[in-house]
Amino acid sequence: MANIRLLAFDVFGTVVDWHGSIKREVEALDLGVDTDEFTLAWRAGYAPAMKRVMSGELGWTKIDDLHRMILDQILIEFGVTELSENQKIDLNLAWHRLDPWPDTVEGLTNLKSRYIITTLSNGNISLLTNMAKRAGLPWDCILSAEVFRAYKPHPDTYLGVARTFDLKPEEVILVAAHHNDLEAARDCGLRTAYIERPLEFGNNNIKDVSARADNDYHAKDFLDLHQQLKQN
Amino acid sequence: MANIRLLAFDVFGTVVDWHGSIKREVEALDLGVDTDEFTLAWRAGYAPAMKRVMSGELGWTKIDDLHRMILDQILIEFGVTELSENQKIDLNLAWHRLDPWPDTVEGLTNLKSRYIITTLSNGNISLLTNMAKRAGLPWDCILSAEVFRAYKPHPDTYLGVARTFDLKPEEVILVAAHHNDLEAARDCGLRTAYIERPLEFGNNNIKDVSARADNDYHAKDFLDLHQQLKQN
Repeated sequence: MANIRLLAFDVFGTVVDWHGSIKREVEALDLGVDTDEFTLAWRAGYAPAMKRVMSGELGWTKIDDLHRMILDQILIEFGVTELSENQKIDLNLAWHRLDPWPDTVEGLTNLKSRYIITTLSNGNISLLTNMAKRAGLPWDCILSAEVFRAYKPHPDTYLGVARTFDLKPEEVILVAAHHNDLEAARDCGLRTAYIERPLEFGNNNIKDVSARADNDYHAKDFLDLHQQLKQN
Repeated sequence: MANIRLLAFDVFGTVVDWHGSIKREVEALDLGVDTDEFTLAWRAGYAPAMKRVMSGELGWTKIDDLHRMILDQILIEFGVTELSENQKIDLNLAWHRLDPWPDTVEGLTNLKSRYIITTLSNGNISLLTNMAKRAGLPWDCILSAEVFRAYKPHPDTYLGVARTFDLKPEEVILVAAHHNDLEAARDCGLRTAYIERPLEFGNNNIKDVSARADNDYHAKDFLDLHQQLKQN
C-alpha cells in the first residue's frame, strides 16, 4: 500500500445521516405527507439535477439551488401548498443541518491525527461549512464540487484533490458509502475505502452493504477504518 | 453596524509571523547570509510575482510555485550555491510551517464561537491547510485565491467570500494587518478590522500601526477584536 497522506470523504450518507435528519425536519412541519417517501423523493432528484448541470443544460448551479428546484417540484407532487417562501427557504437549509452518524466525530478525530482529512462532496462550501460547525466535524479542509466546478463522479474532482495537495492519486483514499463514487475514484488512481451505512435510506430501506473485492478497505464505520489503517 | 455573520482573515502577517518563522528556518541552514535581509527579500518578491499572474504574463500559478521562483532568484542574488534540490523543496515549504502570533489560537477560538471564521489568503489551499494543522488554527473553512482563481486585491476574492456564503458584503468583516487589503475589501462593501502586528517585518523594522479612521475596527490583536465585537 502506497504512503497514504490524505483521506477525502464523501459526506451525504457517509459522514451524515441525511435521511433521518431531513425526515425529522419534514415531520416537524406536519405537512400531512409520508415523510419517508418525501425525503427519499427529495434525495432522488439530486443525481438527475447534477446531470443537468454536467451536461451543460444548466450553467454551474450549486446544490443549495438544486435542492430548492427539487423541493419546489416535490411540493407540487405531494400536494403541499401551505408553506410560505420563508418556510421553504428554511426547509431547504435543512441540508446544512444534517446529523453525523454516532461514530463520525470520534472517528474523524482519530483519523485526523494521522492524515489530512477533507470533504470531497457535491455539497456546496457553505453547506459543508455550516454542517461542520453545527455538528463539530473536525475537517482540515473543505473541498467541494464547487471548488472544482464539476460534480462527482467527474475525474476533475478526484484528481483535483490530489493536485490541490501535490499528491499522487495513490496517496489519497476516497472514503464513501457508495460504490459508484469509489469506482470513479479508483479509475483515477485513488485508493478506496467503503463504509457500511446500512440505514442511509432509513429503517424501511435497509441497504446492502456486503463487501466488494475491488475496494482497498471495507469498514463498518470510521472507528473501524482507523483501526484498519493503523495496521498498515 | 450590519449583522456580521462571517470573519475572513488575511493570513501572512495577520494570523502568522512569516518573518520570524522563515528567518528561523533560514538560520538553521547556516547559509552565511544576513537572514533578516534574505527573509525580507523573499517576501518582497511576492507582490510582483502575483502581479505577473494577474496581468496574464503568467498563467494561474499558486503561491508555492511563486515562492519557489523567487527563492531561486534570491539564492543567486545572495550567492548561495550549496543547497540541494531536496533542500530547496523543503525550504520552500517553510511557508507551510509559519508560527501563529501568541494571541492567534485563543483569539480565533473565541471568534469562532460567534462567527464563521475563514481564511481569505493568497496562499494556496494546501499551504493554508498544512499551516492550520501544524499550528492548531481552528478555521471553519479554508478559502484562498486558489478557489477564486484571483489574487487579492482583486474584487473576485472579497466578493467571492460573500457569494460563497450567500451573504451581503456588509455581513462580512475582512480582518487584516494591511491597509491596502482592507481598502480593497471596503471598496467591495465589506466591513474591515485592522490588526496591529508591529513586528510583522521583524524587530529591525517596526511597522507603523497607528489607527486609520476608515476601518470599522482597530484592534491590538484577535483577543481585543473579540472584546470589541462582543460590545456590538
